[in-house]
Amino acid sequence: MVAAMCTAAAFVSVPAHADQLIDNVQGIRINEDGKAERFTALLVGDDGKIEQVLKRGDPMPEGVEYRLDGQGKYLIPGLIDSHLHVMGLGFGALTLDLSGTNSLAEAQEVIANYAAENPQVRWIIGRGWNQEKWGLGRFPTAAELDAVVADRPVWLERVDGHAGWANTMAMDLAGVSAATKAPSGGNIVRASGSRQPTGIFVDNAAALVQKAVPTPRPEDRDLALSKAQEILLSYGITAAADMGTTIEDWQSFRRAGDNGWLRMRIMSYAAGVGAMELIGGPGPSPWLYEDKLRLNGVKLYLDGALGSRGAWLKKDYADDPGNTGLPLQTPDQLRNLMSRAALDRFQLAIHAIGDAANSEVLNAIEELSFTYEGDRRWRIEHAQIVDAAELAKFGKHGTIASMQPVHQTSDRTMAEARLDPPRLEGAYAWRSMLGNDAGLVFGSDAPVESPDPFAGLAAAISRTGPDGKPFGGWRPEEVVNREEALAGFTSWGAYAGFAEGKFGRLAPGERADFVFIDRDLLLASPSEIRETKVLQTWVGGMRVYSADQ
Amino acid sequence: MVAAMCTAAAFVSVPAHADQLIDNVQGIRINEDGKAERFTALLVGDDGKIEQVLKRGDPMPEGVEYRLDGQGKYLIPGLIDSHLHVMGLGFGALTLDLSGTNSLAEAQEVIANYAAENPQVRWIIGRGWNQEKWGLGRFPTAAELDAVVADRPVWLERVDGHAGWANTMAMDLAGVSAATKAPSGGNIVRASGSRQPTGIFVDNAAALVQKAVPTPRPEDRDLALSKAQEILLSYGITAAADMGTTIEDWQSFRRAGDNGWLRMRIMSYAAGVGAMELIGGPGPSPWLYEDKLRLNGVKLYLDGALGSRGAWLKKDYADDPGNTGLPLQTPDQLRNLMSRAALDRFQLAIHAIGDAANSEVLNAIEELSFTYEGDRRWRIEHAQIVDAAELAKFGKHGTIASMQPVHQTSDRTMAEARLDPPRLEGAYAWRSMLGNDAGLVFGSDAPVESPDPFAGLAAAISRTGPDGKPFGGWRPEEVVNREEALAGFTSWGAYAGFAEGKFGRLAPGERADFVFIDRDLLLASPSEIRETKVLQTWVGGMRVYSADQ
Repeated sequence: MVAAMCTAAAFVSVPAHADQLIDNVQGIRINEDGKAERFTALLVGDDGKIEQVLKRGDPMPEGVEYRLDGQGKYLIPGLIDSHLHVMGLGFGALTLDLSGTNSLAEAQEVIANYAAENPQVRWIIGRGWNQEKWGLGRFPTAAELDAVVADRPVWLERVDGHAGWANTMAMDLAGVSAATKAPSGGNIVRASGSRQPTGIFVDNAAALVQKAVPTPRPEDRDLALSKAQEILLSYGITAAADMGTTIEDWQSFRRAGDNGWLRMRIMSYAAGVGAMELIGGPGPSPWLYEDKLRLNGVKLYLDGALGSRGAWLKKDYADDPGNTGLPLQTPDQLRNLMSRAALDRFQLAIHAIGDAANSEVLNAIEELSFTYEGDRRWRIEHAQIVDAAELAKFGKHGTIASMQPVHQTSDRTMAEARLDPPRLEGAYAWRSMLGNDAGLVFGSDAPVESPDPFAGLAAAISRTGPDGKPFGGWRPEEVVNREEALAGFTSWGAYAGFAEGKFGRLAPGERADFVFIDRDLLLASPSEIRETKVLQTWVGGMRVYSADQ
Repeated sequence: MVAAMCTAAAFVSVPAHADQLIDNVQGIRINEDGKAERFTALLVGDDGKIEQVLKRGDPMPEGVEYRLDGQGKYLIPGLIDSHLHVMGLGFGALTLDLSGTNSLAEAQEVIANYAAENPQVRWIIGRGWNQEKWGLGRFPTAAELDAVVADRPVWLERVDGHAGWANTMAMDLAGVSAATKAPSGGNIVRASGSRQPTGIFVDNAAALVQKAVPTPRPEDRDLALSKAQEILLSYGITAAADMGTTIEDWQSFRRAGDNGWLRMRIMSYAAGVGAMELIGGPGPSPWLYEDKLRLNGVKLYLDGALGSRGAWLKKDYADDPGNTGLPLQTPDQLRNLMSRAALDRFQLAIHAIGDAANSEVLNAIEELSFTYEGDRRWRIEHAQIVDAAELAKFGKHGTIASMQPVHQTSDRTMAEARLDPPRLEGAYAWRSMLGNDAGLVFGSDAPVESPDPFAGLAAAISRTGPDGKPFGGWRPEEVVNREEALAGFTSWGAYAGFAEGKFGRLAPGERADFVFIDRDLLLASPSEIRETKVLQTWVGGMRVYSADQ
């Protein structure tokens, strides 16, 4: 009924020019062929995307509004951590750390200061104490905690996580008393000649107090996310794969995006298919907030870790006859969960550490690939201990090995204790993965390890630890070269998260995510790489971190 | 370390002009003083906001790129429904609808046909039955459902959503038997002289069967949301308060926003404080998607409905001696829930239908207002039966009565049966609310009633039903005038959702949400208003519904 009489759609639209030239830098990027390439300047459009990568001698581009003098500093693509736990990193950084204390008195001082500096914290949670290191010759007591904090409950985990130290208010709130019985597999330390708990709860008994610790409030979660961003950006990490996103985590990510304080990019993998369906609904989310957030898929667990002998092995642990670890899913359960995700095109990221677990996931991928065709990018997270005879399977069906270089250097002696030499043939086998044409991406598994990507880069090219040991590297035939290591922390990480073309390579059309550092990663020695200082971090053409501020 | 050498920030920025003039209309808007005002044209900017409201004789504005000839049609502000259930409306439209049935036999026939036409449906879900309308004088039974559908479970919600009707298979699948106890705040109707459930589950007891109903998949939810939008926009409703948003509902709203198919505005009230905290986190969400979505606060229930005798009365139901209905919260529970929400500045919207329930909420608001000061806009949803002596309390502390005009016309005879005349003094007392300076906003409670706002407008100014009865209107002293009725469905609705200045009045600076209709609401008779045809619906300056397409 309403006839539209329109004049010609004569839009007068002059785009605002605000291109900025990041000039006079010693730039390194990974090109289309995966080769490192040097450049001297970046032209960034007002949309925060790369317009041009300039090499020495290239003519000055037109339309430049701003020029930033890089003063000859080194510039690399924003680093991508392909496996970490964003909220875990943030919460960990916000809790009290006693691992540096050398005496009970010193610990008490640290605790008192923390309490004074954090009046808003309802429960004081911490970890890292070690009465052996203190030379105490006994466990500390609730009374010794009450002496410094009596107004709030305090709950502190021992360095090995196998005991907890509570003050009196924490025990009261938990309803723990002389009448409380210890659960099986746990021990309540009691005062000599009485049943009164002294404040130390060992192994399973720790749950008696733990259950009274309140779950974090949304504002606590937002604080943790903010802290995690601050830490990651300070390390030059501009994008990360969050492994195990809960709906509460996701809501915090969205609050950050909705309110304009999401400064890094998060590729999210939901904590199980329930969270996957609630967060993503009928499929992966779109890229949100200018490519800063997307639910890519789901994180599943098939086994545990090597240290706790939870990794599922084909044969007994060398140091624990009769124990092979165990699978957390039956073969049917694993395939059902994978099918439910793949059916709706969610990406699978499956935790597998032991050789039996990796074998099982590889077989499941082989089977499901016939039903779920196309570009699936099946991810196996950790892929630490693999039967050498099965390494070649990683090259099939577009499988990606998501590995953490620092785990190799940290786990080395433990792995040698848990496994006999033949089973180490396929352990942390980075070079073999590439040799078999498997996808290979690197991460930190923070907060399990430090998120420092330069420690990861150094380990990746040397297979030596911070102490430079073992001389020449552990099973050095599995090192990757500098270009591969950098690609593993940048462009390949973007590909593993379906983000190629959006960020990761500093190519024209991609988001301008880059980092100023103080040295040349193509020339520095592994130990020098470990010492790399991040000067500035930029995301989407905006500076989001500066060391001198 | 990096010195920024910038040229003067010489932005060349010429805004694109695409103003459109909605011309030659017979417009009606509510002005700042709540008075109806006529206009002839609207100038809408390319940001979808009103730039100018033109009256007859005003000069043609400059910078007009498009002119839309309204051909003299009537134009009103987009209508705002202040109380409905978006997903319920969508799912309702996609499920078996018994609201049109006038007898048990007719309902049985409709159910049998639906079952035959939908063999793939695992559970037959429906709603809308009303034993009062059927003149049954009792609740229907499971046996009467089994007679038409015995091969599949059937679960049918009463018209007011406060009771459910199950067949035997549904009760078996839910594990409900003579041994099942009713939860507090609920009632299982049992055969006289036995404990055998008859198939009717009132209020909280409905959950006993509901829990056995398979939950919809995300794609089902998106389909329901899309259907609800289609229905509401076809009625000229451009914004609605969603009462009882779950996290699943919210995720569907966000998918619509993220993917660009959210075409109407939703002011969300979470289904309880758990959903409130999960959706909003530390407080109400920001306005999202250009003012199309916001979590305003939380919906709480204090009692049930009149039809199922779940409304909480000060004295016995006139037609059910010994029954006063029941509160769903203790006074302490209510205050604790209200405090938890108000503490974080979430808005409260509390369902209260009986006089005892309204009295209790008014007292709670009175008490909490001392602690939670400022602009709270406490909402009482329905406010149907109020002790006449307490009507004045609605005028205090910025309380808003959120009422549904059609409930009055639908409930009239039932209310007269449930309540003796003295208790009808304060029933559906719209005029008294305004007289006491209370906030008053109108809605439909869809899918409990049709979302048709013109039926609501007609009822609001006449207190007569579609049949024109009772002659002169039921307790006509409580009618509101046309301006008040229109404001109740537009500008006041925006205010009740903290959206004043964003939409609701067609004032300069507000979003251009408007509706073309086929008659003059200031001149048409109530029965003519009921027949109003919506020709086109526009949201944010874009046409989102047209009757002739």
